[in-house]
Amino acid sequence: MNQKNEKIILTGDRPTGPLHLGHFVGSLVNRVKMQDECKQFVMIADMQALTDHASQPDLIKESILQVAFDYLAVGIDPKKTTIFLQSLIPQISELTMFYLNLVTWNRLKHNPTVKQEIKQKNFQESVPAGFMIYPVSQAADITAFKADLVPVGDDQLPMIEQTNEIVRKFNRIYKKDVLVEAKALIPKFARLPGIDGNAKMSKTLKNAIYLSDEPDILKKKVMSMYTDPTHLKVEDPGKVEGNPVFTYLDAFDSDKESVQKMKDHYAKGGLGDVVCKKRLLEVLDNFLAPIRQKRKDFQKDPKHVLDLIFKGSEDARKVAAKTLKEVKDVMHMY
Amino acid sequence: MNQKNEKIILTGDRPTGPLHLGHFVGSLVNRVKMQDECKQFVMIADMQALTDHASQPDLIKESILQVAFDYLAVGIDPKKTTIFLQSLIPQISELTMFYLNLVTWNRLKHNPTVKQEIKQKNFQESVPAGFMIYPVSQAADITAFKADLVPVGDDQLPMIEQTNEIVRKFNRIYKKDVLVEAKALIPKFARLPGIDGNAKMSKTLKNAIYLSDEPDILKKKVMSMYTDPTHLKVEDPGKVEGNPVFTYLDAFDSDKESVQKMKDHYAKGGLGDVVCKKRLLEVLDNFLAPIRQKRKDFQKDPKHVLDLIFKGSEDARKVAAKTLKEVKDVMHMY
Repeated sequence: MNQKNEKIILTGDRPTGPLHLGHFVGSLVNRVKMQDECKQFVMIADMQALTDHASQPDLIKESILQVAFDYLAVGIDPKKTTIFLQSLIPQISELTMFYLNLVTWNRLKHNPTVKQEIKQKNFQESVPAGFMIYPVSQAADITAFKADLVPVGDDQLPMIEQTNEIVRKFNRIYKKDVLVEAKALIPKFARLPGIDGNAKMSKTLKNAIYLSDEPDILKKKVMSMYTDPTHLKVEDPGKVEGNPVFTYLDAFDSDKESVQKMKDHYAKGGLGDVVCKKRLLEVLDNFLAPIRQKRKDFQKDPKHVLDLIFKGSEDARKVAAKTLKEVKDVMHMY
Repeated sequence: MNQKNEKIILTGDRPTGPLHLGHFVGSLVNRVKMQDECKQFVMIADMQALTDHASQPDLIKESILQVAFDYLAVGIDPKKTTIFLQSLIPQISELTMFYLNLVTWNRLKHNPTVKQEIKQKNFQESVPAGFMIYPVSQAADITAFKADLVPVGDDQLPMIEQTNEIVRKFNRIYKKDVLVEAKALIPKFARLPGIDGNAKMSKTLKNAIYLSDEPDILKKKVMSMYTDPTHLKVEDPGKVEGNPVFTYLDAFDSDKESVQKMKDHYAKGGLGDVVCKKRLLEVLDNFLAPIRQKRKDFQKDPKHVLDLIFKGSEDARKVAAKTLKEVKDVMHMY
């Protein structure tokens, strides 16, 4: 908590592409809400993106702006939320260096989230050291702002545990409670399936609907969505559970009653996929149209958006510098 | 090389105690010479000291001044050499974070110097991650100043190789020769044995003669030195090779002829250890007296010495900031 007794939230995204509906449901919507209740820091994590995209600096540079456009378009308000660029906060690197001495090599090797990601990314023997230590760098992100709350998916819980281990060890060794333990904030709708039915919508899996998708692309994606593969004829009963069309309707259609009716009808048989998809397209288009428009307005003036990021980074740097000073003081450093 | 076409040297010490004769012979004497021939940066490596002394911040703080006193006492001249404190150069941490993405976890695990040190330090399974990655942090130290030359013992050659691997990979990926490969500079007298005959003089082995040792302590240490354990009676022939008394005489007695005579006499038999030790004591006392005096003068005004370090760190920071800017530019970062 800060002096105004507000809870502090730290969250963010790796800039490796524009944001999609999965990001909206899993985090963006909560940020728009939380910015009125907490002191919120939203980090564009370009340093973290480099840990597995070191040879794609242009993708990262381009994505920083794309992510910022998405933030502003969905209503993250730089007057309420501090939007900043990770690489503009050198204090995070400095804190990372200190924390690396408090974590054993073995502990890093056995971080469940990292182990899982190494498998997914097919790194095998060539996993970059920067990737292996990113839980420590994440502890630096979180503690630099003394965040109380960190919104994460449940697969990311070990990262928060790692952060808190570092916090406790630091405070114990240096004999003062300078760092603050963080609590995971697990969102209701943590994850949206991809349009192909995969449990996770992701850029890598090419199964995402982007906030910036134009109507024709949106239409193509929705109409080609995975549904119930056993639902061959309209009159057949269809599966609602695990059918992404209905998951999306649950997430985006505010007319809950009509969604329930469609589900019942679909399950009973007699409701075709095309009808459901058309309804979903209508809902998503209504949802995305104003976001798309706002995004285009911001895209017209990228310089202004960059300035917002720089201004936010300046504010974030002041907070991180204050923490670093406290950290160095209890470590009796010059 | 810098714009003045001078070679650039980066060297330094971990502040974990005052410096001893081994440091003098292996590095300090060369630094006094090199400061007239090159652009020399001497780093007090407090960040590196933390990698295996994280819970001893006071030892590090105290040692920073001790090391600086030693530097100034032996004639490292802050007007010619940039003496700086590693933790005051945040750019080194930032560069380290970039370089960690260019080195595989596996590569770090197999660094021969680190493997050897892990054994010596008896870390076993609890080696700190900060310690494992210190070769990468060292690459950041070296490249931040675009050092051409790095004085190292031959056991440290793999560290220079790791640095140059990073340099080549960085320049290749980011398509510009921003970073400079370094050459190891192996000193003639790389290593002085301890007074116990151990191959290496070191604080940990408690076999060191410190530059700051008072005459009575010096006398005690010299008179108790390990010699040839088979040389029981004065008239016995003694072993010169591996006898630290003669190694020290070789290093510190400028009267080479007299040293040779003593060696011959000792080998033949008829020359007692005590005579040799007395001569060594005389030589070392002559050598240390002015250093001890100069050190005391500096110790009277620690604030002045700290200011010299801060001033050097400011200069070093400017150089490192210039390198970091070039690095971030070719990485297309903001």
